[in-house]
Amino acid sequence: MSLFDFHLDAVDRDTAARAATFVTAHGSVRTPVFMPVGTRATVKGVTPAQLREIDAQIVLANTYHLFLRPGSEIVSEAGGLHSFMGWDRPILTDSGGFQVFSLADTVKLHDGGVEFRSIIDGAKHFWTPEDNMAVQQALGADIAMVLDVCPPYPAEESVVAEAVRRSAEWAARCKAAHTREDQALFGIVQGGVFDHLRRESVARTVEVGFPGYGIGGYSVGEPHELMLESLEPVAAALPTDRPRYLMGVGNPTTMLRAIALGVDMFDCVLPTRTARTGTAFSSTGRMNLRNAKYARDFGPLDPSCGCPTCTTCSRAYLRHLVTVKEMLGSTLLSIHNLHFLIDLAGKARESVLAGTYGAFLSAWMDGPGADDY
Amino acid sequence: MSLFDFHLDAVDRDTAARAATFVTAHGSVRTPVFMPVGTRATVKGVTPAQLREIDAQIVLANTYHLFLRPGSEIVSEAGGLHSFMGWDRPILTDSGGFQVFSLADTVKLHDGGVEFRSIIDGAKHFWTPEDNMAVQQALGADIAMVLDVCPPYPAEESVVAEAVRRSAEWAARCKAAHTREDQALFGIVQGGVFDHLRRESVARTVEVGFPGYGIGGYSVGEPHELMLESLEPVAAALPTDRPRYLMGVGNPTTMLRAIALGVDMFDCVLPTRTARTGTAFSSTGRMNLRNAKYARDFGPLDPSCGCPTCTTCSRAYLRHLVTVKEMLGSTLLSIHNLHFLIDLAGKARESVLAGTYGAFLSAWMDGPGADDY
Repeated sequence: MSLFDFHLDAVDRDTAARAATFVTAHGSVRTPVFMPVGTRATVKGVTPAQLREIDAQIVLANTYHLFLRPGSEIVSEAGGLHSFMGWDRPILTDSGGFQVFSLADTVKLHDGGVEFRSIIDGAKHFWTPEDNMAVQQALGADIAMVLDVCPPYPAEESVVAEAVRRSAEWAARCKAAHTREDQALFGIVQGGVFDHLRRESVARTVEVGFPGYGIGGYSVGEPHELMLESLEPVAAALPTDRPRYLMGVGNPTTMLRAIALGVDMFDCVLPTRTARTGTAFSSTGRMNLRNAKYARDFGPLDPSCGCPTCTTCSRAYLRHLVTVKEMLGSTLLSIHNLHFLIDLAGKARESVLAGTYGAFLSAWMDGPGADDY
Repeated sequence: MSLFDFHLDAVDRDTAARAATFVTAHGSVRTPVFMPVGTRATVKGVTPAQLREIDAQIVLANTYHLFLRPGSEIVSEAGGLHSFMGWDRPILTDSGGFQVFSLADTVKLHDGGVEFRSIIDGAKHFWTPEDNMAVQQALGADIAMVLDVCPPYPAEESVVAEAVRRSAEWAARCKAAHTREDQALFGIVQGGVFDHLRRESVARTVEVGFPGYGIGGYSVGEPHELMLESLEPVAAALPTDRPRYLMGVGNPTTMLRAIALGVDMFDCVLPTRTARTGTAFSSTGRMNLRNAKYARDFGPLDPSCGCPTCTTCSRAYLRHLVTVKEMLGSTLLSIHNLHFLIDLAGKARESVLAGTYGAFLSAWMDGPGADDY
């Protein structure tokens, strides 16, 4: 297979779920896949060796944060993100657009680009789509994302319509400016929860043409049923021979239902963020390790889990670490939570390959973790 | 070899340095040895698997902290500290005496025992030597320490004299109360920087008789030359056929010079504590990774080091993590710093076995790390 080839290994009979392989310069990614988020070129508290141990195939890094610190020049001088962070498997960078629009205090947006202030020191920055491509090419991930315009939720239809139009124009400019041949550039579909705007965004982005498509603007506060309802026609309208990446989504149930709609790739800060508050995903739903009921519970965190945390630590020990605010608690729960989602995506892939994804999803939806959206 | 046997593998020709093997129920400890500190049943930010990777032979845990949280009953119900923290190599617990005297707001001391308040919730606690033995036997480390009285530095001679007398009496009571056959109980020598009190403390503690001896009351603020001067006759007076453990000391140069005086075991929070401030030990002295000069330094942290951090991370990456306050920076620097001291003690052992410790120490003292006391 050639670079950026997307091979459909299997398509489910009962749902739109797919199992596929996407080729990058740092190895192939087998989908469906959950991608741990390494915001500042580190998955918080987890070493690259620990990520390999839980079979992380690809990690995500945030262009906005790395642009501010240490700066894309330093990462580039280090030989790119892989060399800088010591991770030799695939990496994806977002464009930073989401952070610009959600984190920055003052944003000035026009057709030319976006002006924003640093959350670190208030310094003024200006990105054209071309500037953003230069930054992401300097970072050197295997997959880069176009700079898009992310409206908040809820937003007026006219605001979302303008974001769709501008995102499509910027997508074309990003594609024209992107020259790095060992890096795939993915387009991004916007449109909020307006069906016709989503359809328009799909049509305009696909018209530009990319080796993969992000689906943005979800998981920004809308009810999950509304999101899934809106997502279905979007996923269906995207080309079948390209990977589909639902950006920023990683709750177990949302992920499994989106896979059934034909989505291939997922990322979310949830597994590491909730770990730092003492919360664990499990086959029987979320567990809050601060709960006193675990103080004398010497069984494994999740008896059905084979991760390094569950095979070496008891609930009582994890509760102790969380209670006394020891950083090892965050690390051990992060490893478990990441493994949980990576493994869940892997099991989804296995059942697609076996032609049983419908049954797999039904079993999950009948189980105790079903309400974990 | 039987349990708690101490075998002298070699004695240096030019110094009092020794290489020895001490047998515990969880395997043998080869000395000289540096023991990472796992205060609350965790070496901060470092997993047991990572500790094995850097060849940590034995870790220390703090009775005071574990007594307060989660409580020794819970650790005992878990099957003891090894099972609780997932560490199957040797463990040593201190008595908690040092913390009682240095951390507690109000301490009431008399011959019967010591009353103190919890730093967590202010609750009042009372320990007799017998109580303390019960706690340490419940924790179930391979080596326990007697409850001693730790005077501050500087202290009046009369205060230190009383601490020596009381510590000796408590040592005898601890020995009488200690029944766990798979756990060695070490005595502790006190006496501050008063030579005659140190000699008295050695004589009285050895008279009680223990399978090993802690040397306490140093590294509490006294100048290091004064400490080393005072330490020499203490180490020389202790039995040659028992391990000697210099409590709370772990600077590279102090460790190497104490080894030359015949000390076998060391522990210190320094490697992990300094790591959390962005500081690394190295063969060329301490490095402050917050320093801007490392921003574009893409070489390894310590080129002569083979630890997991130095073989995978650049100074620029570590500086980035430290600068943006990512917890992975603390973890990676902790791994390096612990490896540095473990490896340094291991090299000391190798040179004692080779009969070249004098030359090894001279080379260190002529090198750029010599001022790291």
